[in-house]
Amino acid sequence: MSKIILTGDRPTGRLHIGHYVGSLRNRVTLQNSGEYDEVYIMLADVQALTDNFDNPEKIRDNILEVALDYLAVGLDPAKSHILIQSQIEALYELTVYYLNLVSLARAERNPTVKAEINLRGFGSSIPLGFLCYPVSQAADITAFDATTVPAGEDQAPMLEQTQEIVQRFNNIYGETLVMPKILLPDNKASLRLPGTDGQNKMSKSLGNCIFLSDSSKEIKTKVMSMYTDPNHLRVEDPGTVEGNPVFTYLDAFCAQEMVDEYLEGYETLDDLKDHYRRGGLGDVKVKKFLNNVLQETLTPIRERREDYAQNMDYVKDVLKKGTEAAQEKASGTVARVKENMRVNYFA
Amino acid sequence: MSKIILTGDRPTGRLHIGHYVGSLRNRVTLQNSGEYDEVYIMLADVQALTDNFDNPEKIRDNILEVALDYLAVGLDPAKSHILIQSQIEALYELTVYYLNLVSLARAERNPTVKAEINLRGFGSSIPLGFLCYPVSQAADITAFDATTVPAGEDQAPMLEQTQEIVQRFNNIYGETLVMPKILLPDNKASLRLPGTDGQNKMSKSLGNCIFLSDSSKEIKTKVMSMYTDPNHLRVEDPGTVEGNPVFTYLDAFCAQEMVDEYLEGYETLDDLKDHYRRGGLGDVKVKKFLNNVLQETLTPIRERREDYAQNMDYVKDVLKKGTEAAQEKASGTVARVKENMRVNYFA
Repeated sequence: MSKIILTGDRPTGRLHIGHYVGSLRNRVTLQNSGEYDEVYIMLADVQALTDNFDNPEKIRDNILEVALDYLAVGLDPAKSHILIQSQIEALYELTVYYLNLVSLARAERNPTVKAEINLRGFGSSIPLGFLCYPVSQAADITAFDATTVPAGEDQAPMLEQTQEIVQRFNNIYGETLVMPKILLPDNKASLRLPGTDGQNKMSKSLGNCIFLSDSSKEIKTKVMSMYTDPNHLRVEDPGTVEGNPVFTYLDAFCAQEMVDEYLEGYETLDDLKDHYRRGGLGDVKVKKFLNNVLQETLTPIRERREDYAQNMDYVKDVLKKGTEAAQEKASGTVARVKENMRVNYFA
Repeated sequence: MSKIILTGDRPTGRLHIGHYVGSLRNRVTLQNSGEYDEVYIMLADVQALTDNFDNPEKIRDNILEVALDYLAVGLDPAKSHILIQSQIEALYELTVYYLNLVSLARAERNPTVKAEINLRGFGSSIPLGFLCYPVSQAADITAFDATTVPAGEDQAPMLEQTQEIVQRFNNIYGETLVMPKILLPDNKASLRLPGTDGQNKMSKSLGNCIFLSDSSKEIKTKVMSMYTDPNHLRVEDPGTVEGNPVFTYLDAFCAQEMVDEYLEGYETLDDLKDHYRRGGLGDVKVKKFLNNVLQETLTPIRERREDYAQNMDYVKDVLKKGTEAAQEKASGTVARVKENMRVNYFA
């Protein structure tokens, strides 16, 4: 059986280094691993509309921003189909069919949905579209016969919902849909980055993100004003490394070569941490090092992004071709689904 | 502005005289009135699947049965597009978009849905598809720019849901969707027929229906064993006409010419009723008259049905052409919707 990846993002804003560490970097590795027969990367605009339906222009604008981010980090249209969800008609159709296979009680029990309902303060005014988005995700995953869904631990309940739908569908209508598996990040560097303000999560609305498109100057300003250990008041005080976002970022981005190049007087990142813990190491010095590390990582990404931005016709063509390939794949699935559901009247 | 009708049925079984009196007869009148620019009659198989998803073969079989019923009663493919819901891709897409415009609380408040949840004993195990079917109906109605939805009083809450969605959509995205109105039956003859057993509703599962496809003999057997006034034990007893299904059927079907032809000794149907009320008129005599009335009405329908059934290729072609016309119309609507929602990336 083919090994097929489906993953993607809601295009609600430019992508930041949290996305890079949490998924994009790994996605490029998977793409280039040669292990997968097909890779589909979805710009999930329909899903983004479930809680942005009164602001469609925002989603439209961010489709292109995210596409630029994708190309900039090294997603390669020759290896990965980059597609726009709303343009794949099969997804709407599968969503409507799958709604019959999930009870209201089951949808309300989904912990991710529950958490997001609380976070957004929806209460019972939750739009049906938002309540149903795990079902729409099942359509996304199954439409491409995805075997592998790279995602964080927090997405596990969403994938379980998809697995239930696949099982139920295949039980009722016969073997039709491919059972997908989640691919969890396999090292700490793929975990979620905190915000520059020390908040648990990098979030556009909190203004605590470093974007892949940030200028060199913006990166430096953000790094130099980062939250660190609040008890590390004087240089000579002992500092805490754990939970200190400056060190968390270093853990995620710092390679040994960067220590060699930018960090005189230390052999390894661990040496730097030890010094910080002992006291006598100022935040400014650590931040300057982090700035170098981030600049080295992000400069080529930003430069590629600027090059692509000069050639938006190419970017649109990438989306068009990726979307066409996705349409063809998903149409095949929906034809199989309709045949087994016996609703292929004129086939 | 064009006047456009959208109506239809769930193809869960052959149609019976309750459908005929409640909607089909009026539908043919509307079709032939010359007042409407376009008429769409939908075989709502996707809606039927919301509570028959484990038995798709039943729906498939009944698509053709109901199509035969339609043609038999005089729905004319030259004037009305008869279409299969599942084949109109635009409907799935509109459904998914509209789900964002309706809250869970609003969906649960719909009295028709509430009643059906109770009737079917769903409780919180109600499938999302069933909960969402008023949204799917809004997609059906708006896809065809319907101005007019002929339906019973019990469907009024469904249409109100559609009207809310139209208003909300147009408020957010600008004037896009046509606001529909319900067209309620304008005379008592269009009301709901009780079952032959006196139950409130004619229902296949209760076995109390007279089908449009019933043979002459089946009709007679069913009529002669109908429930009447249970206190009318002896011929000489006074009888009750109100709520007596035999008389309700006569009210719905009996024309003056039928009295003249079949009912010796009475000038009008009212004379017959008066005699029944006074006493001295046996049920058998009234039933024999009802049998004549129904045979006269249903024989030409059944004969046309049998003719069409000899030519299923023609029937399938009617469905194909009607569905194609509907696809074209609905595609136009969805293109307008996508443009105004700003999700027409490659248009």
